Amino acid sequence: MRGRFLSLEGGEGAGKSTQAVRLAEALEARGLHTIITREPGGSEGAEAIRALLMQGDVARWSPHAEALLFAAARADHVEKKIRPAVEAGSWVICDRYVDSTRAYQGAQGIDDSAILALHAFGSKGLLPDRTFVLTIPQEEGAARATQRDGADNDRFAARDHAFHAGVAAAFERIADAEPHRVRRIDATGAPESVTARLMESLADLLP
Amino acid sequence: MRGRFLSLEGGEGAGKSTQAVRLAEALEARGLHTIITREPGGSEGAEAIRALLMQGDVARWSPHAEALLFAAARADHVEKKIRPAVEAGSWVICDRYVDSTRAYQGAQGIDDSAILALHAFGSKGLLPDRTFVLTIPQEEGAARATQRDGADNDRFAARDHAFHAGVAAAFERIADAEPHRVRRIDATGAPESVTARLMESLADLLP
Ligand SMILES: Nc1ncnc2c1ncn2[C@@H]1O[C@H](COP(=O)(O)OP(=O)(O)OP(=O)(O)O)[C@@H](O)[C@H]1O
Ligand SMILES: Nc1ncnc2c1ncn2[C@@H]1O[C@H](COP(=O)(O)OP(=O)(O)OP(=O)(O)O)[C@@H](O)[C@H]1O
Ligand SMILES: [Mg+2]
Ligand SMILES: [Mg+2]
Repeated sequence: MRGRFLSLEGGEGAGKSTQAVRLAEALEARGLHTIITREPGGSEGAEAIRALLMQGDVARWSPHAEALLFAAARADHVEKKIRPAVEAGSWVICDRYVDSTRAYQGAQGIDDSAILALHAFGSKGLLPDRTFVLTIPQEEGAARATQRDGADNDRFAARDHAFHAGVAAAFERIADAEPHRVRRIDATGAPESVTARLMESLADLLP
Repeated sequence: MRGRFLSLEGGEGAGKSTQAVRLAEALEARGLHTIITREPGGSEGAEAIRALLMQGDVARWSPHAEALLFAAARADHVEKKIRPAVEAGSWVICDRYVDSTRAYQGAQGIDDSAILALHAFGSKGLLPDRTFVLTIPQEEGAARATQRDGADNDRFAARDHAFHAGVAAAFERIADAEPHRVRRIDATGAPESVTARLMESLADLLP
């Protein structure tokens, strides 16, 4: 039996990585074999591309080159890890996926249709069975991330308020446009409450 | 005054790198400022991507992931090096360019129109003012390359006869389809004869 493919999306510090672990535990507790993976990265080749994307100056790559690198990394990740796992019956939780590219590259002026065309080319357009957009006031996300990291230390975190507002708006548009696949999840409050909301929001997918 | 953008294409061992140097000398002798660059690579970011493309097993990347990586590298190379140099008045000689991607990825089943769409996205579709396809019998190219390298030692050279025949056929199709831009150059005989053919074939572009 085919497994399921879930993605966690949202701005910095929303709690995606925290919830990936908690959600996997909740699914395992129901007897579902679950794996956690992340983007960019998740497979050997994609992690090598991730290193190129994450290192160096904010302006190291143009938005177009960046979109192509993300698409290349995703193609490798989907082919080598996500598709085989789902086909083997696993539940795959991906910490960021194509909607992050749409939101982040979109906030830098790349057309959504162009990102989707690259995704169609590289990954045959594979979309999750369900995508959760974790929503949290921007300051709260920033506070969580700063508390965790000490100082911001990657190319994506080193952006200003307007940029992050653009990203949040893009996630809203995606959720509005694809209500069956994409669900907004209130990510404030205790971690266990957020996990409960996630489980409720995927109840229709559970066996 | 705008410079010119030239590319050298053809199979392994045809003499592209040799002719890049000789052609640059011939153009410099006419007082034209000339730079030589190469693909994949040619700029700092693109060289980092080149390392990912050249290392590892032949099957490390799927043809689709590979096409995306080439497009990303080319986007960086065009933006950071080729366009600025041509705009500043230089003649740019590129040792392989998009036609190599069309020929090599095409020989692995990727649609030519898809490669051109990636090129349009990443590099605004920039094409050379003139492209030279160096033609040489396959065995002669292989013999030249083997004499040079000792043993084949990159992912592209480690392919069979049928693959290289497919690449050569793709270069032929490109030359047939774009006769104004793309010129076949007989690459047999002495290096100086080949250079003379190149200079003759770009006479209409010279100031
Ligand atoms: N519900 C919560 N309440 C309070 N703190 C939380 C909650 N969820 C996560 N945190 C904390 O907030 C910080 C950011 O969480 P996490 O790393 O999961 O976010 P993220 O969305 O993965 O961030 P990034 O986008 O930077 O990867 C961590 O220190 C985490 O422990
Ligand atoms: N006209 C020629 N006659 C004989 N040998 C040549 C000629 N041109 C180049 N060579 C030699 O053939 C070998 C391959 O040439 P070169 O490296 O220029 O080819 P290339 O097309 O750049 O190959 P590759 O695709 O592997 O980069 C080198 O050893 C070079 O010195
Ligand atoms: Mg995280
Ligand atoms: Mg060469």
